Amino acid sequence: MTDTGAGAAGGRRGRSARGGAGGAEARRAARQSGKVEQLRYITRKIPVFETLSTEALEMIEYNADTILEEVGIDFRDDPEALAIWKEAGADVQGERVRCPRGMCRKLAQTAPSEFTQHARNRERSVQIGGNNTVFAPVYGPPFVRDLDGGRRYATIEDFRNFVKLAYSMPSVHHSGGTVCEPVDIPVNKRHLDMLYSHMRLSDKPYMGSVTAPERAEDSIAMSKILFGDDFVDNNTVMISLINANSPMTFDDTMLGALKVYARANQACIVTPFILSGAMAPVTPAGVLAQTLAEALAGIAFSQLVNPGAPVVFGSFASSISMQSGAPTFGTPEPALVLYGAAALARRLGVPFRSGGSLCGSKVPDAQAAYESAQTLMPTAMAGVNFVLHGAGWLEGGLISSYEKFIMDADQLGMMQTMLQGYDLTENGQAMDAIREVGPGSHFLGCAHTQANFQTAFYRSNIADNNSFEQWEAEGALDASQRANKIYKRVLADYVMPEMDPATDEALLAFIARKKESMPDAFS
Amino acid sequence: MTDTGAGAAGGRRGRSARGGAGGAEARRAARQSGKVEQLRYITRKIPVFETLSTEALEMIEYNADTILEEVGIDFRDDPEALAIWKEAGADVQGERVRCPRGMCRKLAQTAPSEFTQHARNRERSVQIGGNNTVFAPVYGPPFVRDLDGGRRYATIEDFRNFVKLAYSMPSVHHSGGTVCEPVDIPVNKRHLDMLYSHMRLSDKPYMGSVTAPERAEDSIAMSKILFGDDFVDNNTVMISLINANSPMTFDDTMLGALKVYARANQACIVTPFILSGAMAPVTPAGVLAQTLAEALAGIAFSQLVNPGAPVVFGSFASSISMQSGAPTFGTPEPALVLYGAAALARRLGVPFRSGGSLCGSKVPDAQAAYESAQTLMPTAMAGVNFVLHGAGWLEGGLISSYEKFIMDADQLGMMQTMLQGYDLTENGQAMDAIREVGPGSHFLGCAHTQANFQTAFYRSNIADNNSFEQWEAEGALDASQRANKIYKRVLADYVMPEMDPATDEALLAFIARKKESMPDAFS
Repeated sequence: MTDTGAGAAGGRRGRSARGGAGGAEARRAARQSGKVEQLRYITRKIPVFETLSTEALEMIEYNADTILEEVGIDFRDDPEALAIWKEAGADVQGERVRCPRGMCRKLAQTAPSEFTQHARNRERSVQIGGNNTVFAPVYGPPFVRDLDGGRRYATIEDFRNFVKLAYSMPSVHHSGGTVCEPVDIPVNKRHLDMLYSHMRLSDKPYMGSVTAPERAEDSIAMSKILFGDDFVDNNTVMISLINANSPMTFDDTMLGALKVYARANQACIVTPFILSGAMAPVTPAGVLAQTLAEALAGIAFSQLVNPGAPVVFGSFASSISMQSGAPTFGTPEPALVLYGAAALARRLGVPFRSGGSLCGSKVPDAQAAYESAQTLMPTAMAGVNFVLHGAGWLEGGLISSYEKFIMDADQLGMMQTMLQGYDLTENGQAMDAIREVGPGSHFLGCAHTQANFQTAFYRSNIADNNSFEQWEAEGALDASQRANKIYKRVLADYVMPEMDPATDEALLAFIARKKESMPDAFS
Repeated sequence: MTDTGAGAAGGRRGRSARGGAGGAEARRAARQSGKVEQLRYITRKIPVFETLSTEALEMIEYNADTILEEVGIDFRDDPEALAIWKEAGADVQGERVRCPRGMCRKLAQTAPSEFTQHARNRERSVQIGGNNTVFAPVYGPPFVRDLDGGRRYATIEDFRNFVKLAYSMPSVHHSGGTVCEPVDIPVNKRHLDMLYSHMRLSDKPYMGSVTAPERAEDSIAMSKILFGDDFVDNNTVMISLINANSPMTFDDTMLGALKVYARANQACIVTPFILSGAMAPVTPAGVLAQTLAEALAGIAFSQLVNPGAPVVFGSFASSISMQSGAPTFGTPEPALVLYGAAALARRLGVPFRSGGSLCGSKVPDAQAAYESAQTLMPTAMAGVNFVLHGAGWLEGGLISSYEKFIMDADQLGMMQTMLQGYDLTENGQAMDAIREVGPGSHFLGCAHTQANFQTAFYRSNIADNNSFEQWEAEGALDASQRANKIYKRVLADYVMPEMDPATDEALLAFIARKKESMPDAFS
């Protein structure tokens, strides 16, 4: 499977040297030792795409402040949160919090504009914010799907498989969180097995549990076993997903997890989760104002809990079908929201999360790919810093798809190359090649082509560019059938990264102790 | 098929009112009368995406001038062209033309920055250049493919079908040219049947023949029958594709057609056709310099032939696989070239052609969609003015695909909505909706949603957003299977636009006379 990992790596200027026997051997040796050659997180070299004027952005910011001041945000079932807001000078009526114009923006100023999330393998630590982009896998699906087994509930075995795939794909920089829901494990113990899988089967950075404050505490405790107490006290080793209950509501579960993580200096992604038409108005400018208001409230709250705690402006925005009420993906309106929200986050000075490879399709077909590209390319062009759902998302997030994970990872590799922009060195300008070849000849054998051909172009591991005849002779497979073969090869070739046995034992002992302390719960 | 045409229309602010019984009836009535509700060409309301700095663009322009001055361009087998260059002051050695730095750019100044291409139905005339984008169908494939018949040589019946599809899809603004090669018609007579199909079966603007100067003359003669002599003498009614024989070569066929069209004030698209690694260097900056040099030479030549003749800076750029030599599509490097070439054309002050829905896949699967989106989105973001291959392209341009035509037309509709940008009116800001709904409720029934739901979101006619259970009950079709049904419905519903019988007779008489004057030729 020489080409599986390295092909997916893509990036022309990535660390993986492609082609050539030496490169293949080096990769094989690296795999044997449990080390996978990886692409680092992206530091973009082309500008971001700005779609809104400064005046338009200021108007949306004004509207967000109007929402915060006049309409207010509910902080539900969390008296401590309300007390914190009151103490800070907000107008608190029941569970409704209203903030004077500018207050939340001012509070947000203590949040860092970018920060490092450390991985246990320091070479895979990621920089979140600024000109950087980090790709993480799909998050949350209760089902998995592949061509062989069809659609079925996810298990911990599936979970481990997706962690292995994310570990093996060089273009996926992050191990993610709930890569699928392992429904065969009790819901109150699941987070322990999920975290252990990320820690043991990968050495990329990972996300913490948010389904209860005590599970957030467990996430920190396990991270301290992995990284050491001191290191976790002084560094960010987790990023966790705090969704708002849009419209304009935060609930106690999310607030509880946010407080735990913020106090421990671990990063939170405050994400208004919006299907336009249901949780927000049907217009992009309206969605943007509401998104900004909710994000501002959550970010400001995190800074009230612990000034300086790393926090990310999140936006998950799609639409519902006005005919059926079903969520839709890959349409133009969410792309407009994405571009606008990225610009608003830049003006606020905090990292931004959005995007991914979202789609509504039930199978990894043309609909899935078109819709995913319609989210992923705006993600890349807008300068999203942390990209959840980068690979594997299918059926509106109900499914983690094995085949689509492979297809999407290939697209992520392309985005990595794209964002590197242009080589404008003398070699990049290639005037010697043009002079050497001249009119009417060809560049196949010229010196410049010979010197550059190994790294000149992004090389997909999933696209078939052979002749029609050869493609037919090889079985006339479509992309999903090729991806099916690739994901199996990747899993078969997977080599677990090394871990200090004492650390491993300590993690397992912690999990066993925790599991013994609770009865199983399945809801 | 209420939703087929209108669904594909998409555009929120398009002329087609979607939903509602009145709209459906109006559409039905319109179809009966041979009139299809259409989207006009796009006038973008969001900025273009600039990926290169002014300094970088100046460097590429300098390199292009170096190519024109030092390396030169071959004008082959056309003594008249060489004489024209000599007369203009170029250095002509044999067939090699070298131009002093700045000469071609100066000559290009007489080319209009934008122009109108008239359609026989004036409501479908298109504006080429400036902030406008026009989508045209695939051009050139010798094969067609659909799910029923598989891959097969194209016939005039297929040609007519694709003209009908382009006519019926509101997001396709242009009837195009060689929507497929009707190989069942003698090669020396084919252009007559192709042109007649565009003229008779559609009322959108069309392209002229370029395969021989006398076929260009026929195109003009037939256009004069359709539009009247005076009108054609004074207006642009055709746009035609003049490819350079890259690297740095124009041949007598293309030059011959160019001269005919330029002298008749009909538009030419001068297009360096580059597969990077074969016809140009392997680096985007090198491809850009060569593309600009070739386009400058062709554009300058058109202005020497007839100063003020409408001409378009074209760029077709993809790469070859460095392993197999096969062309590849949808990779990052051609997208970088596309963004750069669009910026160079803007600086030159002429309209720009590139892009489309290019892919290498053999079937309309996820590869086809991902690759097409990776070309189409840069096309839209870069501000391409004339988009050939907008719909239907498959297998590296060897196939016109019925199903992919439908899928791509849906994507074109999305781009049209995307480029309209944001509604920043009071209604677009939706503050009343946010105030009405407030925290913790939903927007489904609020007044703003009710007032806007019919036009709020782009509505795809091909995406399936139903529940998994409903999708399964409806046969678990993938996107290509749904597209198969749609294309057949569109063709079944097609109603030919009206034409003055005398014009029709005159066109048919011209074609009969021409065909009688030549023996059949099949190569």
